[in-house]
Amino acid sequence: MRTWGRWGADDELGALNLLGPEQVRRGMAAVRDGTVLPLAAPIVAGRGFGVAGRPAPLHFMARDGGDYAGGLAEQGGFGWADDVVTLPTHGTTHVDALSHIWRDGLMYNGVPASAVTSRGARKLGVHQIRPIVTRGVFVDAAPGGYRDPDDRVTAGELERLLERREVALEPGDALLVRTGWLAEAVAGRADARAWPGLDGACAGWLAERDVVLVGADNVGVEAWPSGDPDDQMPLHVGLLRDHGVYLSELMDLDGLAACGRATFLFVLAALPLVGAVGSPVAPVAVL
Amino acid sequence: MRTWGRWGADDELGALNLLGPEQVRRGMAAVRDGTVLPLAAPIVAGRGFGVAGRPAPLHFMARDGGDYAGGLAEQGGFGWADDVVTLPTHGTTHVDALSHIWRDGLMYNGVPASAVTSRGARKLGVHQIRPIVTRGVFVDAAPGGYRDPDDRVTAGELERLLERREVALEPGDALLVRTGWLAEAVAGRADARAWPGLDGACAGWLAERDVVLVGADNVGVEAWPSGDPDDQMPLHVGLLRDHGVYLSELMDLDGLAACGRATFLFVLAALPLVGAVGSPVAPVAVL
Amino acid sequence: MRTWGRWGADDELGALNLLGPEQVRRGMAAVRDGTVLPLAAPIVAGRGFGVAGRPAPLHFMARDGGDYAGGLAEQGGFGWADDVVTLPTHGTTHVDALSHIWRDGLMYNGVPASAVTSRGARKLGVHQIRPIVTRGVFVDAAPGGYRDPDDRVTAGELERLLERREVALEPGDALLVRTGWLAEAVAGRADARAWPGLDGACAGWLAERDVVLVGADNVGVEAWPSGDPDDQMPLHVGLLRDHGVYLSELMDLDGLAACGRATFLFVLAALPLVGAVGSPVAPVAVL
Amino acid sequence: MRTWGRWGADDELGALNLLGPEQVRRGMAAVRDGTVLPLAAPIVAGRGFGVAGRPAPLHFMARDGGDYAGGLAEQGGFGWADDVVTLPTHGTTHVDALSHIWRDGLMYNGVPASAVTSRGARKLGVHQIRPIVTRGVFVDAAPGGYRDPDDRVTAGELERLLERREVALEPGDALLVRTGWLAEAVAGRADARAWPGLDGACAGWLAERDVVLVGADNVGVEAWPSGDPDDQMPLHVGLLRDHGVYLSELMDLDGLAACGRATFLFVLAALPLVGAVGSPVAPVAVL
Repeated sequence: MRTWGRWGADDELGALNLLGPEQVRRGMAAVRDGTVLPLAAPIVAGRGFGVAGRPAPLHFMARDGGDYAGGLAEQGGFGWADDVVTLPTHGTTHVDALSHIWRDGLMYNGVPASAVTSRGARKLGVHQIRPIVTRGVFVDAAPGGYRDPDDRVTAGELERLLERREVALEPGDALLVRTGWLAEAVAGRADARAWPGLDGACAGWLAERDVVLVGADNVGVEAWPSGDPDDQMPLHVGLLRDHGVYLSELMDLDGLAACGRATFLFVLAALPLVGAVGSPVAPVAVL
Repeated sequence: MRTWGRWGADDELGALNLLGPEQVRRGMAAVRDGTVLPLAAPIVAGRGFGVAGRPAPLHFMARDGGDYAGGLAEQGGFGWADDVVTLPTHGTTHVDALSHIWRDGLMYNGVPASAVTSRGARKLGVHQIRPIVTRGVFVDAAPGGYRDPDDRVTAGELERLLERREVALEPGDALLVRTGWLAEAVAGRADARAWPGLDGACAGWLAERDVVLVGADNVGVEAWPSGDPDDQMPLHVGLLRDHGVYLSELMDLDGLAACGRATFLFVLAALPLVGAVGSPVAPVAVL
Repeated sequence: MRTWGRWGADDELGALNLLGPEQVRRGMAAVRDGTVLPLAAPIVAGRGFGVAGRPAPLHFMARDGGDYAGGLAEQGGFGWADDVVTLPTHGTTHVDALSHIWRDGLMYNGVPASAVTSRGARKLGVHQIRPIVTRGVFVDAAPGGYRDPDDRVTAGELERLLERREVALEPGDALLVRTGWLAEAVAGRADARAWPGLDGACAGWLAERDVVLVGADNVGVEAWPSGDPDDQMPLHVGLLRDHGVYLSELMDLDGLAACGRATFLFVLAALPLVGAVGSPVAPVAVL
Repeated sequence: MRTWGRWGADDELGALNLLGPEQVRRGMAAVRDGTVLPLAAPIVAGRGFGVAGRPAPLHFMARDGGDYAGGLAEQGGFGWADDVVTLPTHGTTHVDALSHIWRDGLMYNGVPASAVTSRGARKLGVHQIRPIVTRGVFVDAAPGGYRDPDDRVTAGELERLLERREVALEPGDALLVRTGWLAEAVAGRADARAWPGLDGACAGWLAERDVVLVGADNVGVEAWPSGDPDDQMPLHVGLLRDHGVYLSELMDLDGLAACGRATFLFVLAALPLVGAVGSPVAPVAVL
């Protein structure tokens, strides 16, 4: 089952097509006290998660106060600092482009994987992801702690968690799931050999509910390993590729867990990196 | 005149202190039809603006469809692409940290410039900028075209433009000013030797109105050159340093100009780059 | 005509097979006064040549004296500086790996171009280039000045220039040809839209003489444009691909021109960048 | 004891002043069979040594065979690959510039550390290191194995090792010392928390013998830790700073150990990275 062609043979937006004024209104209607919560984890130079060969972020000053302390005089009435960062697009809080994943040589909507070469993604690039402004829905799959990687979150559990919060997913909602992995990994108590997350079979259930995006505080939203050596990324394939549903990973969801809110206004805007297959993001929840 | 100490001797947030639930509500109240407008300009590898020695963005694939086209077999039921970007933090649509600028060796709130060395900003880093969710106010200082760099936008003109739109700036508003420069520069018809923008004397007027941020579609919000060789960045000094008011540059404001809206919900979230002095951003207007 | 298979079906070394103790001795025999001449051009951050989308070199300090001037105390009895460079492997004085070029999908010795993917060169990588220590032979194709790009250096002219210097090329020699381009380009008087160099038809003549490497002070050893739109890199194809003869570009040959020497000991050692298709080098002439 | 001023108050070359035709001749006189031995260790993307916050090398293809496998047609009669590397200048086989180290705020010849800021080294940059062509002298401090980090190599031991090989150090010689660390580290059997090497007290003895450079197959030539918490880099300070004697680290000296030769022609040429404090190098021994 997949929804290729649903929004046209040339569609590159996928589930973004589900977004419109109604989703914006639903998101705003979820705002209660107006607290603004950042969902991005700090980006620390030299601190990576050791996944998929992704380098740690680099940060270099191109000009700084040390120049002046070292004798450079201010000119024109000011001094200034400048810097440069190198970021793996999937190495910090980020969103996956639809060109991030394929199976049998095909990405979302049947675009061949060969559309992504060293020159970048000719199709389905991350610059296609227009800002997501919608209702966010949060569930905590590891209340007060850390989920066991072997205990994959099933669709049934998602359903129960939502029912308990009395929330029904609506088309265009963004679902965020906390597993507790990020905090553990940052603290050095977990690594990327295994991480907790969704079971691959959630893909169909989520696509059916027409969510625009699924986010989590782990490396891949879905659990790793998947349990099936021949199908190691079933949720990536099942959502990004088969249905054009977006994934956002390495989010910091501890603030949402602490505040106890299940719905809120959710804003996520990818950097329009032309031809990239992912983007660092700084998603926001307005409570 | 400066407002150091207004929010405490150790404050690193500056005008962010002006933001709260009231600003969120004011922003949401400005939403009418729920259209979502991205304000970030495309980030194109190899395309820089030739300012201040900032390199052009770089984009490299770490793994791509060409690997598979070249013979690498899919394993585990999927194929994938990954990439890495190198970005000057002030070289694409971005927000300046309060550690970006100083005068007489001092940054906002009296923090010495020497707090910013090759190790990054120990104070006033861009990771301090929590997400900005507030009312955005837009004025077009070059309707239908391109502003002459010599014709600097004065506080008086800002006042008249706002009056014409029947908008009064409120504390915590984000003011966005279109000059027409970005589109001209991208088209190769303008460069960074001179760009249109605000006159330095706007700083006091803007600070008095307690805006949280001023954004523009040029390199520095303020015009370059300033007209005074001994005071070449008066607005940077006057806003960032003297009042902790934020600047966001290289925004794409042509969509706002086209839609004719003066107020909207504005969301800008910096990447939490620990110790950086700026961040690429993808600001959003909800109309 | 090509020499694939000459050194075995699996050979990845090409003309390096021509080198041995005899070439080392011939090189040392050419040493007269023992002057050491560097042949690498300065690598300046931000200064590129605008060819083939190659970025300018980047140079960032990771730790520097400014840190200490800014207040960091020396610890353990010392202070230190550290830095990082980003270099396009063909953007400064460099040597091409045999994996740099192909025609009809095949590189040297019939290796398919698909052996070079985003993961790097699985075959013919620059790390295969063991240090070249041999006799260098220099000819000046633009005495005292700059060669016209349209006036391509022919095999006949090379022959005459060598005869005039009473030098006969021997197997394993490295031939260096000065065109005057680099100095002009650095001075801003020439660019990369056209550069002087060898005519493509030199390839056969050079391969026949069994040179190990041809170097020049331009972007591609051969002239650009080649004069034939359907065969724009005939020397690259004719030497690197067809015969495994190496090319080294962006050399600074003005010192050799000034000293008047035609033969010398030549040493060029690539950085063993595993899987790269080129390497910055600092070749040396011992006079 | 230090030799500042020995070659003039403005000298930036240090021990390079010891090199001249005599050293070249001495080096060439040491050549016997003409075998060429590379002394650089492979540079592998993603493989760093975890020292001093230095990132692992990065390597990215900017254009590759996968582009063509993915559908890009050859144009103009050729296809090509290009790439970019990011290298910490002290993270692979490299040479230290005299601006790499200081004590009491002063580098070699009294140059203040503040000459090295985020803009690079205004003095003593690595581009000052002209190619070193001289006699190399090799001693193996860990024959057939790995030296214990606690068992620091003393000047007395160096003396005995040289006597056993019947070699007397001459002014301008480059001394290379094998500790066995590199191979162990690459194999994952040693790390950078401690490495074997020279005792700090060797500095005076080596400077007295007027060597131009000391190289080793470890991170710092000298052992780490030094044994004195208040003087953790005594050899760096004692050679680079006090005498302008160069250090080259992370060399692969196993080939020299295997061939049994004590003297040879040694060639080391830094990349002329303007303003850098170190350079990757590919040193060569001609046996």
